[in-house]
Amino acid sequence: MKIARFLYKKQINWGIVKKETITLITGEPYKKIILTSTEIPRDKVKLLAPATPSKIICVGLNYKDHAAELGMKIPDEPIIFLKPPTAMIGPEEKIVYPGGVGQLDYEAELGIVIKKKGRKIKEKDYAGYVLGYTCLNDVTARDLQRKDGQWTRAKSFDTFCPLGPWLETKINPADLNIRLYLNEEIKQDSSTKNFIFSAPFIISFISKIMTILPGDVIATGTPPGVGPMKRGDHAKVEIEGIGELENQIT
Amino acid sequence: MKIARFLYKKQINWGIVKKETITLITGEPYKKIILTSTEIPRDKVKLLAPATPSKIICVGLNYKDHAAELGMKIPDEPIIFLKPPTAMIGPEEKIVYPGGVGQLDYEAELGIVIKKKGRKIKEKDYAGYVLGYTCLNDVTARDLQRKDGQWTRAKSFDTFCPLGPWLETKINPADLNIRLYLNEEIKQDSSTKNFIFSAPFIISFISKIMTILPGDVIATGTPPGVGPMKRGDHAKVEIEGIGELENQIT
Repeated sequence: MKIARFLYKKQINWGIVKKETITLITGEPYKKIILTSTEIPRDKVKLLAPATPSKIICVGLNYKDHAAELGMKIPDEPIIFLKPPTAMIGPEEKIVYPGGVGQLDYEAELGIVIKKKGRKIKEKDYAGYVLGYTCLNDVTARDLQRKDGQWTRAKSFDTFCPLGPWLETKINPADLNIRLYLNEEIKQDSSTKNFIFSAPFIISFISKIMTILPGDVIATGTPPGVGPMKRGDHAKVEIEGIGELENQIT
Repeated sequence: MKIARFLYKKQINWGIVKKETITLITGEPYKKIILTSTEIPRDKVKLLAPATPSKIICVGLNYKDHAAELGMKIPDEPIIFLKPPTAMIGPEEKIVYPGGVGQLDYEAELGIVIKKKGRKIKEKDYAGYVLGYTCLNDVTARDLQRKDGQWTRAKSFDTFCPLGPWLETKINPADLNIRLYLNEEIKQDSSTKNFIFSAPFIISFISKIMTILPGDVIATGTPPGVGPMKRGDHAKVEIEGIGELENQIT
């Protein structure tokens, strides 16, 4: 099932994506999905980022092939950082290249959107806390990341967290091809089979630190091949079974 | 003027603190403060953290005397990091010592609560974006901070951001004594005169990265003297003109 958040007649709605229409649901999808009889043509809506996060929690190095590429030891625990909710944008929205930034990189990632409040979640129980999976671009000002040492500033600018196009509920997060295309050229091409830390482990690990809330977003790290974008470029994250998230740099 | 957020008859309210009562206001204080005729005795309310943040933005090294203590060069730009809103607790609430943490440190800080949405704010305009100032304890798992390199995990556990007891609106953030008492013993004792980056500069700097929203919290860094707390200890942040924020470790 694909769950979308969208703008229709100037109102924010949620719905279930079908071939040519979206079935409107009542309210938000976190507690229970209640279908209405309203079918909206897909070409009449503007898709929005499919989440309403109180926080966006990201995992650093999480692909074995990326660690190998960097010549880095595989970490024994995830390194986490946060992006502010103000960084989030939806499909087709523009990524703004900030003045004063020297290098702006794409990072294709599998995003997880949380369904319900949780704390100290056991790995085996993870699925009950997941509303769905989506594509995420962890846009990073690489020069500021190097300068600061701390990654927060480099990853926190407005528009630095494209998310979408919708949530897919019925996929296995441990076996998904993930690609990034820059202007239609493949730059990242891997699989979540290469995860160092699995989605269940990451959810459990984070929930031992902080309470996760409905709508929170978890970014699961990026595969090898990260690189720079210029103004005017198109970045597209494609994840098997989910779809494509495309954003232009402005 | 002192603005408090509090629980009264199981409801969350905001009000203006007077000597023996709190004057209830209508709704939230961000847009306009509308007084009601209801006076609530101060001993009938439970004070809550005086903010409703979408994000908590913190500045690293920001006291000249702290930089000197650490033998570190004064940074040319603030280093920022984020704490999740789930870390926030109010006065008298317990700081939970997480299992597996080896060293839990206090860090007394001046907190700024944002009044209105802003982006690329000029230093000279900062005051219009500030609702008030409060005491903040940037609780830190020092061993995890050292292990991770990134500071996020160490500073993001639930209860790691005590805030309060209320907001003071009419003070000069550039000239406030700030102290931390651990079990009534002074451990940190400095003044915001020692700020490397002023409150106006910090607000301007952050707003060039991300949009700040009403209720967001900015933590302005800690003076020298940080150190560990044990279970059962009482940590008290005291800032001139604001008041005292006290929390026990459990």
